[in-house]
Amino acid sequence: MEKPDWIAVDWGTTQLRAFVMRGNVPLASAESPDGMAQLAPDAFEPALLRLIDPWLTDATLPVIACGMVGARQGWVEAPYRSVPCAPVATGQTQVVPTRDPRIRVEIVPGLSQQTSADVMRGEETQIAGFLVQVPEFEGVLILPGTHSKHVQIAAGQVVRFATHMTGELFALLSRQSVLRHSVAGDGHVDAAFVEGVESGLTGHVLERLFSIRAEGLLAGLLPAAARARLSGMLIGAELARLPAAADYVLIGNGGLIALYARAMAVAGLNSKQHDGADLVCKGLGVVRGEMAR
Amino acid sequence: MEKPDWIAVDWGTTQLRAFVMRGNVPLASAESPDGMAQLAPDAFEPALLRLIDPWLTDATLPVIACGMVGARQGWVEAPYRSVPCAPVATGQTQVVPTRDPRIRVEIVPGLSQQTSADVMRGEETQIAGFLVQVPEFEGVLILPGTHSKHVQIAAGQVVRFATHMTGELFALLSRQSVLRHSVAGDGHVDAAFVEGVESGLTGHVLERLFSIRAEGLLAGLLPAAARARLSGMLIGAELARLPAAADYVLIGNGGLIALYARAMAVAGLNSKQHDGADLVCKGLGVVRGEMAR
Repeated sequence: MEKPDWIAVDWGTTQLRAFVMRGNVPLASAESPDGMAQLAPDAFEPALLRLIDPWLTDATLPVIACGMVGARQGWVEAPYRSVPCAPVATGQTQVVPTRDPRIRVEIVPGLSQQTSADVMRGEETQIAGFLVQVPEFEGVLILPGTHSKHVQIAAGQVVRFATHMTGELFALLSRQSVLRHSVAGDGHVDAAFVEGVESGLTGHVLERLFSIRAEGLLAGLLPAAARARLSGMLIGAELARLPAAADYVLIGNGGLIALYARAMAVAGLNSKQHDGADLVCKGLGVVRGEMAR
Repeated sequence: MEKPDWIAVDWGTTQLRAFVMRGNVPLASAESPDGMAQLAPDAFEPALLRLIDPWLTDATLPVIACGMVGARQGWVEAPYRSVPCAPVATGQTQVVPTRDPRIRVEIVPGLSQQTSADVMRGEETQIAGFLVQVPEFEGVLILPGTHSKHVQIAAGQVVRFATHMTGELFALLSRQSVLRHSVAGDGHVDAAFVEGVESGLTGHVLERLFSIRAEGLLAGLLPAAARARLSGMLIGAELARLPAAADYVLIGNGGLIALYARAMAVAGLNSKQHDGADLVCKGLGVVRGEMAR
């Protein structure tokens, strides 16, 4: 392996991922289930060292981390930066005291919004990575997930953003609510998904949730179709009030992005898709100053 | 104790309650946590006998049960009756085969609705009990709970109904979602509740859920106020599309009904409250034919 000069870390609620970097090129990566939610404050450094130990030498390597690791319940709180602002900034990281002399750890601040109160941690770094690749972008980025983010970008800044708990609601309703009896399977039933999106776009989702259970009992709605309908209803509700005139880019990986693209089309919204795989490394590279903006 | 002539049973998902009756008068009651969800089919009879054994004699006592006990996953399925129809009917119960000669068990059917698919089990019996007391009622009954029911009544019949998963959503969001970090306490913070109702009445609830978390982090929203706001948002959303012209009666007990009455007032809807305590016995009495309608 080439000699690394820093380590990029994406440390979320349920997962820890690290990339050993030379300039802006990842040389190798590793991950563990040591997410922020599982760790007491004094367990963060050992969890990190377990993962990155093979990459360490006698020299001190900078480690730059983003995500929930910087939350109040995380390792060390990295105070939010307020929008409107660039998604990340050099010189505004939170330095973390560590014992091991082979690492020097900094955490990237999340973003906050006072009017229509909202917060993000981690997505700001993906957004910075996206803007490295598409610096002139003006429009709305949509980052689907447990807590889906809609982020309005202008002049390289995050102007405003909104969080939708779509992924978390889908997980709770499909696994823990009474709907779990009616919802199953992994196949995508497009007609049921589209029907769900159309229902969700009307904005009256909550009053229709129980119909999934009732149609399973009365009308033979099959579990895979019920699951697709529920997914469509929640995604449709998320998209219900987006303006038709804006440019949208969906950021993420795989099936979820395809599902959102389908729902955007049903909603009459144009969208492009952008692979989210290495955006965190690119964004952390901006923080490190390795990349010209 | 006077000599009983039948036993009324309210057998829900999580609870079993029985009343030993003489005519339409409960002589005593008992309850256990042997709800339908905890029992395999062959465990229902023993669970019932454990509870009512002290009341049994050599004679065979009729037992009339309503609720989820009649669901497909219950003791024996009692097929739904389709609305529009009277909430309960004599001679349409499902007889359950039992081993113990001291009881003869019948289950009251639930109601189903084909267009805007919906189902209920248990509430139909409460509604029948209400109509014993207010036979001329025309309007909408609201039965708040895990699965809140809105039931339009005309000419003594259930014309149509709708289920809202309000109580279950509140439980999931306040205990299992990311909002659990921000929501706590039992006190009623009226201003926050009203603010939540007003937000919910707009119909755009899902996009505002995460603001409860964000305001906790950024603006010091206190846990009891956050809990009241969440409750208000979900109840407001439930009431959002009710017509102003109808007559509403809230059926139930205690604090939840008072909360709904407050929300109805915020929504500009008039409502009366009706104690739900003994409606199941009264409704099962209709099934048994003890009460003139």
